[in-house]
Amino acid sequence: MSKLLMFEKPVGMRDTLPHIYETKRKLKEAVEKEMRSWGYRFIETPALEYYETVGEASAILDRQLFKLLDQAGHTLVLRPDMTAPIARVAASKLLKERVPLRLAYSANVYRAQQREGGRAAEFEQIGVEMIGDQTTSADAELISLLVSVLKKAGLKRFQVSLGHIRFTDELFKQILGTEERAEYLRRFLYEKNYVGYREYVKSLSLSSIDKQRLLRFLDLSGGKECLEKASELIEGQAGREAIEELNSVYERLEEYGVAEYIKFDLPLVSHMSYYTGLLFEVYAEGVGVPVGNGGRYDQLLEKFGRPASATGFGLRVDMLIRALDELAEEEAVHCILFSNERRVEAIQEAAARREKGEAVLLQDVNGVEDVDRFTEAYASVSFFLGKAASGKGN
Amino acid sequence: MSKLLMFEKPVGMRDTLPHIYETKRKLKEAVEKEMRSWGYRFIETPALEYYETVGEASAILDRQLFKLLDQAGHTLVLRPDMTAPIARVAASKLLKERVPLRLAYSANVYRAQQREGGRAAEFEQIGVEMIGDQTTSADAELISLLVSVLKKAGLKRFQVSLGHIRFTDELFKQILGTEERAEYLRRFLYEKNYVGYREYVKSLSLSSIDKQRLLRFLDLSGGKECLEKASELIEGQAGREAIEELNSVYERLEEYGVAEYIKFDLPLVSHMSYYTGLLFEVYAEGVGVPVGNGGRYDQLLEKFGRPASATGFGLRVDMLIRALDELAEEEAVHCILFSNERRVEAIQEAAARREKGEAVLLQDVNGVEDVDRFTEAYASVSFFLGKAASGKGN
Repeated sequence: MSKLLMFEKPVGMRDTLPHIYETKRKLKEAVEKEMRSWGYRFIETPALEYYETVGEASAILDRQLFKLLDQAGHTLVLRPDMTAPIARVAASKLLKERVPLRLAYSANVYRAQQREGGRAAEFEQIGVEMIGDQTTSADAELISLLVSVLKKAGLKRFQVSLGHIRFTDELFKQILGTEERAEYLRRFLYEKNYVGYREYVKSLSLSSIDKQRLLRFLDLSGGKECLEKASELIEGQAGREAIEELNSVYERLEEYGVAEYIKFDLPLVSHMSYYTGLLFEVYAEGVGVPVGNGGRYDQLLEKFGRPASATGFGLRVDMLIRALDELAEEEAVHCILFSNERRVEAIQEAAARREKGEAVLLQDVNGVEDVDRFTEAYASVSFFLGKAASGKGN
Repeated sequence: MSKLLMFEKPVGMRDTLPHIYETKRKLKEAVEKEMRSWGYRFIETPALEYYETVGEASAILDRQLFKLLDQAGHTLVLRPDMTAPIARVAASKLLKERVPLRLAYSANVYRAQQREGGRAAEFEQIGVEMIGDQTTSADAELISLLVSVLKKAGLKRFQVSLGHIRFTDELFKQILGTEERAEYLRRFLYEKNYVGYREYVKSLSLSSIDKQRLLRFLDLSGGKECLEKASELIEGQAGREAIEELNSVYERLEEYGVAEYIKFDLPLVSHMSYYTGLLFEVYAEGVGVPVGNGGRYDQLLEKFGRPASATGFGLRVDMLIRALDELAEEEAVHCILFSNERRVEAIQEAAARREKGEAVLLQDVNGVEDVDRFTEAYASVSFFLGKAASGKGN
């Protein structure tokens, strides 16, 4: 264990410096405003939760949890996602009020990284949850809101990939029989390791027809025609229902006028084990990982004592910023440099300019070592120096 | 160790429900806008820092730190304040740019509570730090900004208490000799336990003149006349300099037009051991604890390898909310309830209203169990039900 240098930070921890902060602030303001304008109400939950409750419900790998012990001997976790904490609050306090419940959040979540490899261990998510509405209208509303939010955030080229976990589960059950083999295939899909998937399928002792079905499943990606092909691959009611749900959501998205942003991606699976139906990922041009994801989780709320259907999505703020063409500019600041004799004048000038909405920095010249270097950072500068009481130089 | 109920939260952890969230959001927006308009630039730092670096520099009691171990065996802490993390960033990255540096933050900090006694273990601070300006102009700017921020936040009755840690230290050194006895007295002052202070002073083997000096010190609270009385209590240059600094800052606050909010409070001491000079606390009517505090810390930056003078303040958002006369109202939301046949009309109506800046919630009637109960939460309601395609009811 080496001695730390004073400026070091833990693995995966980041500082956000002013110019990125301003970009983030403006992006968040636009996103949150749009969510509010669709009737979603923001809440906050604590960073620390009990492992036994929210920690276990969160469906994040155990080794990704930051854990600590409290004085009563309970294990605490830094929340690894916001869906489980919101389910806790909704179940214990808010579901009595009005159902369906539309909630939103903007919060940091925490996932431990094994080593410094560029992956953030703390990142901000903005998202919404709709609780208590089992209709596909709810899913369509969420995806339409998602599209609207991304536009307001300033993203130009993005796509929402739609899948359905019950379709995948049913297909695997029909063909594979055992959950163990299904688990293998799901892992390949989650890792988007299609080569591994194909090789594993070939290695299985299955009929060549069934192998073909598993391989053709990988091709169910694209436009609405996927749904027809999907129905050829699967038998029985469960699979048909999943396809019907996808179809219904898509029609509603057409009605919302956002179908152009939608792509079917039937082999989509998630590391979030609580999804029970429709699920989706959001991709933005120029960013290699999803900028957000979501789906339906109809069984999570009952863990908190109040069964209710639910659907939601979360966006990663850092990835959204990466998807922007350019960063926001920092606000222009006017600098007033004064000497002691003209302090009162300078204070008045600053107050008058601020009153008009200008950002004004007021600096005693005695507090500056290098005046040229200091002032060059500002959009414009006034000097109130020396004894003269008239006019202002520049 | 008892089994937890699913809705339980760790000691001192809070949820923020929508109506408080809106109040908090508006308050924070007003405060942050004012800080930006004085030329302060916001930054963010991670929630987790190394204990060895920021944890130890933070001057918060060890038992109040949330600690955990990382995989390399280093102890991490949830940041207990923002001043030390900002000093780290300033020293390592920002101080090359422009000095003095004006930074701001809005972030949660974490202080473990031993038991559930109403004290928050996680709370949000908004504050500023000015780094690299040793003049009393810097201190006066901060306090003026503080007053301006509190007004913008909507606080009506508040007061800033000013003290000087070098005055207290010097007085105790002159009279008591030993640091141990000074430490006792400082603890009484920090706890505002003046009875304990008086009794301890009486128990000391000191001349009655010196005892009187220590007791009269407690009375140095009020207007500018305190400074004269203070100079009668102390000898030598260090004490005189502290009084001169207080005097200089006060004159500047008069020039800023905010002297009416200032009260001297010479016996003021802080639990933050990094303060080196002027320090202050902010009190608001109706709130029993300070809503904020600040002061000068000229020796913290050198711990991070780059010596620089610094001064700053932090406000507790939860206490500011408590100081407000009333909470903000949640935004009025218009609700549109639709049935499947009239979905497209409903979507268009919602989009048109949102375009005009209205908040509109769009709800499929099939997703609602109790329509009356659901709609009563909204400011106004339109119904797009049944097959009719004309008009809208209410």
